[in-house]
Amino acid sequence: MVLAKRKAGGEAVRILGIDPGSRATGYGVIDKQGAALTFVSCGVIRTSEKTPFPERLKEIYEGIREVIARHRPQLVGVEDIFTAVNPRSALKLGHARGVLILAAMQGELPVAEFSPRVVKQAVAGYGQAPKEQVQQMVRILLKLSASPSQDAADALAVAICRANHYNNLL
Amino acid sequence: MVLAKRKAGGEAVRILGIDPGSRATGYGVIDKQGAALTFVSCGVIRTSEKTPFPERLKEIYEGIREVIARHRPQLVGVEDIFTAVNPRSALKLGHARGVLILAAMQGELPVAEFSPRVVKQAVAGYGQAPKEQVQQMVRILLKLSASPSQDAADALAVAICRANHYNNLL
Repeated sequence: MVLAKRKAGGEAVRILGIDPGSRATGYGVIDKQGAALTFVSCGVIRTSEKTPFPERLKEIYEGIREVIARHRPQLVGVEDIFTAVNPRSALKLGHARGVLILAAMQGELPVAEFSPRVVKQAVAGYGQAPKEQVQQMVRILLKLSASPSQDAADALAVAICRANHYNNLL
Repeated sequence: MVLAKRKAGGEAVRILGIDPGSRATGYGVIDKQGAALTFVSCGVIRTSEKTPFPERLKEIYEGIREVIARHRPQLVGVEDIFTAVNPRSALKLGHARGVLILAAMQGELPVAEFSPRVVKQAVAGYGQAPKEQVQQMVRILLKLSASPSQDAADALAVAICRANHYNNLL
């Protein structure tokens, strides 16, 4: 509803991109108005490996809830996992993604998932682009004066990817 | 705090056991008073594979929140994963475990995790016990007139395991 109204009024759509991790979860917020993308915010939710895992999940969940409350995005994109990762890492990452997706669902935000290949395609033009190139392209596309950290850049790349796919759906 | 008071008063400690799964999450609630274990409730939170995964995570989360609100457990045990599972299954299961653990954390309930081997050891006396034997031992230990479903029995086994380990800590 809100989405439709904003579109009709030519207002920007706010998009949150998330790059999940149990140690570091990157987030990036952008506005999309027509074809123009504007940087809003980005950062990293870090948890200590010394903290018990259940507590870390709560920190990740509360961290992203805070980001959502502060920036009020209307769309969410989440990076999907590499399939080649081992079961133990996949399980841990799954926990983090689970609470992140839950937080978005609780905000009634439509969540879309994108593989790293699709995200890289969206910002760098090809799916095998190295991390540094993603970081650099994010900086250029959002007209940032400096490159964001790796995790934040990945999250902004997810947000840009979400913006492109949203466009295709209109 | 509440826990200490109840112990001193000789009251029962209520324990929730969870057997996580993205399709079916079993839960079992028991009371422990001294060495005596009493059955309180058990069931299964089921989600449809036709429902989008983010929505299913919300259903799992809300399902266990409801169980916690209804039965007010003081301790929670969660079954850990089989390490041999493939990354894709591990990732999915991780999402479910993530939101379940989060729900327990939000209720300020101490969460302990147990491997299937330790759970089987606790109810059947040896870590390689087949599923049917776990089911049967749960029925006997909790004096149930009939065997609970597989997922519910596994969750009750986790609760019994949590009860035993709690005992060892006193």
